[in-house]
Amino acid sequence: MSMLQELNPSLRTLMTPGPVEAEPRVLRAMTIPIIGQFDPEFLRIMDETMELLRQLFQTENHWAYSVDGTSRSGIEAVLCSIIEPGDKVLVPIFGRFGHLLAEIAYRCGADVTKMECEWGTAFDQEKIIAEIKRVSPKVVALVHGETSTGIMQPLDGIGKFCRENDVLFVVDGVATIGGTDFKTDEWNIDAVITGTQKCLGVPTGMAPITYNDRVEKILLERRKIEQGLDISSSNPRRIQSNYFDLSQIQEYWSPKRLNHHTEATTMLYALREGLRIIHEEGLQNRFDRHKLHEKALVEGLKAMGLSLFGDPRYKMPIVTCINIPEGVNGDAVRFTMVKEFGVEIASTFGSLAGKIWRIGSMGFSCRKENIFRVLSALEAAIYRHGGKVNAGAAVQAALDVYEESTLAVSIK
Amino acid sequence: MSMLQELNPSLRTLMTPGPVEAEPRVLRAMTIPIIGQFDPEFLRIMDETMELLRQLFQTENHWAYSVDGTSRSGIEAVLCSIIEPGDKVLVPIFGRFGHLLAEIAYRCGADVTKMECEWGTAFDQEKIIAEIKRVSPKVVALVHGETSTGIMQPLDGIGKFCRENDVLFVVDGVATIGGTDFKTDEWNIDAVITGTQKCLGVPTGMAPITYNDRVEKILLERRKIEQGLDISSSNPRRIQSNYFDLSQIQEYWSPKRLNHHTEATTMLYALREGLRIIHEEGLQNRFDRHKLHEKALVEGLKAMGLSLFGDPRYKMPIVTCINIPEGVNGDAVRFTMVKEFGVEIASTFGSLAGKIWRIGSMGFSCRKENIFRVLSALEAAIYRHGGKVNAGAAVQAALDVYEESTLAVSIK
Repeated sequence: MSMLQELNPSLRTLMTPGPVEAEPRVLRAMTIPIIGQFDPEFLRIMDETMELLRQLFQTENHWAYSVDGTSRSGIEAVLCSIIEPGDKVLVPIFGRFGHLLAEIAYRCGADVTKMECEWGTAFDQEKIIAEIKRVSPKVVALVHGETSTGIMQPLDGIGKFCRENDVLFVVDGVATIGGTDFKTDEWNIDAVITGTQKCLGVPTGMAPITYNDRVEKILLERRKIEQGLDISSSNPRRIQSNYFDLSQIQEYWSPKRLNHHTEATTMLYALREGLRIIHEEGLQNRFDRHKLHEKALVEGLKAMGLSLFGDPRYKMPIVTCINIPEGVNGDAVRFTMVKEFGVEIASTFGSLAGKIWRIGSMGFSCRKENIFRVLSALEAAIYRHGGKVNAGAAVQAALDVYEESTLAVSIK
Repeated sequence: MSMLQELNPSLRTLMTPGPVEAEPRVLRAMTIPIIGQFDPEFLRIMDETMELLRQLFQTENHWAYSVDGTSRSGIEAVLCSIIEPGDKVLVPIFGRFGHLLAEIAYRCGADVTKMECEWGTAFDQEKIIAEIKRVSPKVVALVHGETSTGIMQPLDGIGKFCRENDVLFVVDGVATIGGTDFKTDEWNIDAVITGTQKCLGVPTGMAPITYNDRVEKILLERRKIEQGLDISSSNPRRIQSNYFDLSQIQEYWSPKRLNHHTEATTMLYALREGLRIIHEEGLQNRFDRHKLHEKALVEGLKAMGLSLFGDPRYKMPIVTCINIPEGVNGDAVRFTMVKEFGVEIASTFGSLAGKIWRIGSMGFSCRKENIFRVLSALEAAIYRHGGKVNAGAAVQAALDVYEESTLAVSIK
């Protein structure tokens, strides 16, 4: 019975848009023995993590902590803590994860207005601003980087307009933060969610968030403590979820240390270690590293003879989408890449399924040897499945990029 | 800046009712590199974990998997997936975590009827059955082991009555499963939730659940896929949470592999390893081990001159509550135990705060050296804070228990 065997999965080169490879130092940090959640040493670890998160989010916000769950737990926590039944929410959609924001908002009882643009491009910010003027929503919820299409939405103009017009601006930065620039305060974003398993190089299972005092004000108005802690607590505007009730969770992350849940000790160790590595590298160095490897990847793919999917003006620097060549079975290629080369890339969802491949170059997975591995394996697998490739050209083109880069000497 | 220092918390002996010490083999399993969530090897790990969970829950249920979040995420997922607005839910309460069940049910829009008994005892099952007859609820939600009071509620008669009368019986087995007998099927329980950080010896952050076809029927009726995956999906009876929507999560754990979320890879490695260790030890051996160490602990505490809190007929074999001696500052004693001896025990909540200490003997923390450590540290700390103790008697009494036990030879 294999379930009784020691866990020993194959080593993989993960070049999907998540989950990606975790930093080895993060994995080692996870072997640190458990300490109690109200141990003074653990409280210090929580406070340190908050400070490291503020740096990551480029914010002066007081509140920056993690929700215990995968990325979308953070999205749901933010939306359900802000949205009350009947609230107007505008969701501009340019891929699968925009639909997710709308889905969650619906389930919170929001009056959702969706606007959509073609998958593979982003919105002109003025179009979204015009729709905000028309709808007058309480909240605009928007994805920054759509991993489903490899597209990144500019946010600064929308944020400025929202702030000037007292609209709350919530951004899903799950796929971008830590890999490309994200300026929470400068872009006037009220609440941001990210994930651990993409550009942070930490395993899946926590959702770091930050929000400002405009959001905190709503939380305080809706605050209700669970009855086991305060039997008299009541509030007709209470948040619909107890687990995702940020009014309670922020008290857990405050000196009050409200006993809302048992913090996920080991995941917090991992998050802190991942953030410490980011601090050590430096945000700008990190963004530059992601751009360099993206360039090597893109030049390699082009040299191979492949074409990229999506509007290049809005390309995510950490996800690269490729049109699957005519006559090539995309899933068969991916299967061969995993089975023979141990390299994973992704397909996608909805209307684009079967038409594009997606390659992530995120966090710890974003390094030179992985760029070479994915180019080599993709080339061999396409050829094996009857596609045409310029044999050997991809790796040489990527090598050219690395040799020409002044960054290369300082980048792993 | 300490946030930039390598993580290096002190080693602690964790004798609280959770989180407790994780199995060293579990922590090591967490260093295994990440693989993709749809990698065939990962799918096999998921299937193996389901089979190991069925054994843990002592069930023939098909559905046995984990929700990605702390224990209470599993509770909320089960309750919000079953409960529809206006549904009658009966919650018998004998401690803090009963109130939590009521709180979550309220937030799901349930018509909640609470019944309470004094903290420190459990319900006569006939009293609950009489209330079920009176209320005719759709769901009875009940805690098995109340860590807040150290009390365990008998369930078999209630389960039988619920099944015969078509009432759904949901049990919070967070604190008990893996440490004491829990017969999901034999006791006619429809849905069960447990946690990783107590008797499983795994870090906090996952909530294993199981449920039968009576629950699955409701999920299938309420099924709604998120719009990013199927734009046409709609259902007026949809579950209020997307993250906790078990109708989607079960499809993720089925051969359909619905892409509902990115599974928490490393936590799943940990859970599988913890369950494998439990299988290796054997459930009955494991329960016997917990009972033996409880006996040593209890005899030690009595020999020290302390009295136990709570109705002994219903004592949890894995949590021991102690009346704080008159004139002794309970928190000062606990503080000294952590600071000087590195041993953590717990205070409690609500009306019992300041009146009792709680000692957990769960999972990997439940072993001989830890029983001696907690007895020694408690004795010294009480004495240090002006309390009376029979010096040296506790450890001798515990040693007597171990020497007299025929189990001792085979138990760590």
